[in-house]
Amino acid sequence: MCILYMADPADAQKWRECLSSMAPELEFRQWPDVGNPAEVRYLLAWEPPGNLAEQFCNLRVLYAAGAGVDQFDLASLPSQVSLVRLVDDSMAGIMAEYVLFAVLALHRDILAYQQDQREGRWQPRPIVLASQRRVGVMGLGTLGRVALGRLQPLGFQLSGWNRSLKDVPGGRCYVGPGQLDEFLAQCDILVNMLPLTPETKGILNAARLACLPHGAGLINVGRGAHLVEQDLLAALDEGRVGGAVLDVLAQEPPSPNNPFSKHRRVLLTPHIASDVQVEGGVAVIVENLRRESEGMPLLNLVDRSKGY
Amino acid sequence: MCILYMADPADAQKWRECLSSMAPELEFRQWPDVGNPAEVRYLLAWEPPGNLAEQFCNLRVLYAAGAGVDQFDLASLPSQVSLVRLVDDSMAGIMAEYVLFAVLALHRDILAYQQDQREGRWQPRPIVLASQRRVGVMGLGTLGRVALGRLQPLGFQLSGWNRSLKDVPGGRCYVGPGQLDEFLAQCDILVNMLPLTPETKGILNAARLACLPHGAGLINVGRGAHLVEQDLLAALDEGRVGGAVLDVLAQEPPSPNNPFSKHRRVLLTPHIASDVQVEGGVAVIVENLRRESEGMPLLNLVDRSKGY
Repeated sequence: MCILYMADPADAQKWRECLSSMAPELEFRQWPDVGNPAEVRYLLAWEPPGNLAEQFCNLRVLYAAGAGVDQFDLASLPSQVSLVRLVDDSMAGIMAEYVLFAVLALHRDILAYQQDQREGRWQPRPIVLASQRRVGVMGLGTLGRVALGRLQPLGFQLSGWNRSLKDVPGGRCYVGPGQLDEFLAQCDILVNMLPLTPETKGILNAARLACLPHGAGLINVGRGAHLVEQDLLAALDEGRVGGAVLDVLAQEPPSPNNPFSKHRRVLLTPHIASDVQVEGGVAVIVENLRRESEGMPLLNLVDRSKGY
Repeated sequence: MCILYMADPADAQKWRECLSSMAPELEFRQWPDVGNPAEVRYLLAWEPPGNLAEQFCNLRVLYAAGAGVDQFDLASLPSQVSLVRLVDDSMAGIMAEYVLFAVLALHRDILAYQQDQREGRWQPRPIVLASQRRVGVMGLGTLGRVALGRLQPLGFQLSGWNRSLKDVPGGRCYVGPGQLDEFLAQCDILVNMLPLTPETKGILNAARLACLPHGAGLINVGRGAHLVEQDLLAALDEGRVGGAVLDVLAQEPPSPNNPFSKHRRVLLTPHIASDVQVEGGVAVIVENLRRESEGMPLLNLVDRSKGY
C-alpha cells in the first residue's frame, strides 16, 4: 500500500518523515519514481496527470496539496477516486493571521500612511473604532470561520456570506445569491475566502464592487479568478474601493507590467496567505486511513457537485 | 468648579459635550478663555504653561492629554497638583490593534514582500508558525498588558520586560536592568511600550540592539527618544535588525530628509498607534471626581518618583 507524492519536491522530505512516523504502514514514493503503479493507492498532488484511472488502476484517494481544488478537472476525475482537501486547524490559523493582518492594515489606513511615508508627509488621520468598522467574510468554510473567530475579540462588526446558513459570531450570515448585494452594501472591509467554482468565478466584478460602501477595503485570499482585475482597477481609480490587499492574482506569477505591482493603494503578496502544513495534512491522511478501514465517510471529502 | 481645556482645539467640542453630559457639575472652559483663573480646579492639557501654581492657585488635578507624561516637567509641577493619565481600556484596545498589526506584518515578512512588489518579484518565503515566533513586550502597564492579551490567542511565544514583576500570559516576565539583555536575546520581535523616563531614554541603543537575535523585528510605539535612531539605521544596514515599524520619532514631524522615510525595511506612521479617547478620558475624570469627594486615591495617578 503506497502513497505517491507529486507535490512540491522541496517539501518531499518533510512529508516522507512525517508520514513514516505517523503512518508507517504507508510506503512513501516520490514522483517520478512510481515503481509499480498498481500499488499506488493514494496520491498527494497539486495537479495530477490527466489519465489517472489508466495510470493508477487502484487509486482510491487523491489528496489535494492546497486549500482549494479548483486546479483539478473534477469531471475527468474517475468516479472511484475520492478527492480530499488537506485543510486543517494549523492551515486555517495561518490564513487567519494573514486576514487579521490585512483587515488591521486597511482598518488603520496603513496603505495611505505608507504613501505618506514615501512622499514625506506626516499627517495623522482620524482613528475609527473597531466597533464602528463592518467587516464581512465571503465563504464560511473552515478557513472563513477561523478567521471570523480571530477578528471577533477585536470588536469589529462582523458578517458573513455563504451558500448555506452558518454561525457568524456576533453578526449576521447572509445566504445565497439573493442576499449578496445586501451583504456587500454593509462591508467596510470585504474579505474573499470563497472556493473557486463556476458559480464564484468572476464574482467580484464591477456590479458587485459597486455595491460596497464608498472607499471600502478589499482583501482577496481566495483565488485570483474570483476577481475581475480590470474592474477593481477602475473601482480603485474612482475611489469606490479605497485599498486592496491581494494574495492571489488571475495570473501567477504576474506579468512584469501587472497594474497592481506599482499601485499605491494595493498591497500584493505572492500567494502566501497560507499553505498546507505537513503535520496537519498527515493527520488528515492518518484519520482517513482509519475511517477507510472502518467504512466511514472520509474527512474533508470534496463534494463534486458543489466543487469544494 | 471648572475644568480648563488646553488640548487639541479640534477635539474641544467632543470633550465639552461628553463632559457636560457625564459631569454636568463641571463648567467647561476652553483656552484661552480662562475667565477667573482661581476657579480652575482641573486642567486638561498636552503641555501646560510653566507657571501653573501662579496662574491657577486652586488647581488640583492636571489631566495629561496623552498616554505618556514625558512632555511634562515633573520637577516644576506644584506639589499640590496631582498629575493623572487618561489611559483607559478603549485607548489600550486601539494601541493593541496597532501592535497586533505591526507584529503580524513583521511575522509574515510583509515589508520584504512590499519591496518585492515594487521591484516586480513574486517570491514566496517560508512560513514561520506563530508557535515558533518569540514576541517580547517592553513595558507592562495597561497598554502593554492589553497588547499581550491580544497577541496570546495567535499562539506566539510571549515574554515581557518590566521594572516590577507582572503576569505574562503563557510566558516569562523579565525584571529590571539586570535581565534586560537576557530578555532581548530571545525576542524575534520586540515591541517597545515603555514610558519615557530618565532611565528609559535611549534604552534602544547599539548595545541593546546587538542583544537581539539576528534579523529581529523592532516595533516602537513608546516614544521616539527611547530609540537611538542612528543605531537602528546601522543595525538595519548590517541586517541585525531585519525590519522596523515605527510610530514615533525623536523629532515629530520629522525633517524632510529623515533617513527612515525612504527606508525599504521601515514602516513609519505619524504617531497614530493610539490616542486618548474622549469617552474613556471623561470616564476617568468622572471616577476621580467621585474619589476626590470620598477622599480616595485618584485613578491613573502618576508617581512622580517613577515618572509614570
